[in-house]
Amino acid sequence: MRAAVSLSLCLLVCLALGLACVLLACLWSSRFRGGFGWDGSGLEFNWHPVLMTSGLVVLYGYAAVLYRVPLTWGQSKLPWKLLHSGLMLLALLLSALGLCAVFDFHNENHIPNLYSLHSWVGLSAVLLFALQWVAGFAGFLLPCSPLSFRKRLKPLHVWLGGSILSLSIAACVSGINEKLLFVLKGDNQTSPYSRLPPEAVFANSLGVMIVAFGLVVLRILTNRNWQRPDPQPQDTAYTPLTQEENE
Amino acid sequence: MRAAVSLSLCLLVCLALGLACVLLACLWSSRFRGGFGWDGSGLEFNWHPVLMTSGLVVLYGYAAVLYRVPLTWGQSKLPWKLLHSGLMLLALLLSALGLCAVFDFHNENHIPNLYSLHSWVGLSAVLLFALQWVAGFAGFLLPCSPLSFRKRLKPLHVWLGGSILSLSIAACVSGINEKLLFVLKGDNQTSPYSRLPPEAVFANSLGVMIVAFGLVVLRILTNRNWQRPDPQPQDTAYTPLTQEENE
Repeated sequence: MRAAVSLSLCLLVCLALGLACVLLACLWSSRFRGGFGWDGSGLEFNWHPVLMTSGLVVLYGYAAVLYRVPLTWGQSKLPWKLLHSGLMLLALLLSALGLCAVFDFHNENHIPNLYSLHSWVGLSAVLLFALQWVAGFAGFLLPCSPLSFRKRLKPLHVWLGGSILSLSIAACVSGINEKLLFVLKGDNQTSPYSRLPPEAVFANSLGVMIVAFGLVVLRILTNRNWQRPDPQPQDTAYTPLTQEENE
Repeated sequence: MRAAVSLSLCLLVCLALGLACVLLACLWSSRFRGGFGWDGSGLEFNWHPVLMTSGLVVLYGYAAVLYRVPLTWGQSKLPWKLLHSGLMLLALLLSALGLCAVFDFHNENHIPNLYSLHSWVGLSAVLLFALQWVAGFAGFLLPCSPLSFRKRLKPLHVWLGGSILSLSIAACVSGINEKLLFVLKGDNQTSPYSRLPPEAVFANSLGVMIVAFGLVVLRILTNRNWQRPDPQPQDTAYTPLTQEENE
């Protein structure tokens, strides 16, 4: 009972922090950076933090903890596997759109792409995410997937899942930091970042929220007592799509 | 046998990547940034990346995977607990020294402290690390620690251990990114960061190495098959110092 209360509380905190991250990212772009557009200007760039936060961090985190929601227990796992996979695909698409926004902005303004460590880490996170999605789909949903493959894939899937989240957090922290260094230069229009003007405090707080969200997701994922009860006879025996349908 | 080979390989990769991280951090400071000093100048700052990489990432990672080294199995756990705790303390001291270097440098040069998101995340990582060390010492080494405390502490210790490493990686990535934006301005002395001069490629590669090291450490930690065999009757029943000595 006490474990159930702790889990519910953690899931609620996770939900609330995720929504707060998306809200803060939207407000940063709209209130401090002039709003949104898709015209190659800074307004198109403004989609980048919103889409990466929403896709690569929040939706990714929600999809990752899905199997820990007690509502998903005690029923067939198949619909939840499909939902997990679907949410992850949506998260991947949002992330890809977020990359398009920044590449478009760079190309339109003759800014080189992919020179900063932020971009290297962020792109690695998205590429690993795509690889993880394809491997997960092939291993855990395709009916032709052999048991031996699924068995070997599961620990890698778990490890890579947490690792991608860690990379996403690193990419977000370095990205927010970089953007604030670029725009808060202390010229006639802005106070310097080092004086912590309102925008700096606001965007730093977004970074702190993203970090807190990531830590709560990792807390939910690493607690073995919160895993889906009544596992398959073999812990690794995921049932692919058609097999489960035939059951 | 196959699992033992995989584990040994992973541990060797972890060892090599860690050494490469320290080496690259030292070379970045010495070859590209003018070397070391402790005089409040940029030479004192140069200790910051070296000490944070060595303490907060590499030594921390080595200490974290210590119990996965087969050499530590099949004997009393006590010496390895002391070594784990000792290495972590050394890692914490190196990190604290790394913070002193950057605070000294800032104060001497009238640069504000703790305004960037990098500094917020990095300081949080070190503070959480200190908290984790104190709680771990009190829970797993002090003889007066009650079993119920240790039982509740263990999953938190495991979660916070991985979380601190994730925060450290985020701090390193954002820190390297920030430093390169500060120093590669494209003035008369340097090419801009966006043109990826040799220093940018070198320091970005250090960031990639740190990320790779972190992922390998997480891989070793999350693989349940690589945990120390022959656990205590209760998985959570850590034996504090004097109890184990009396056995």
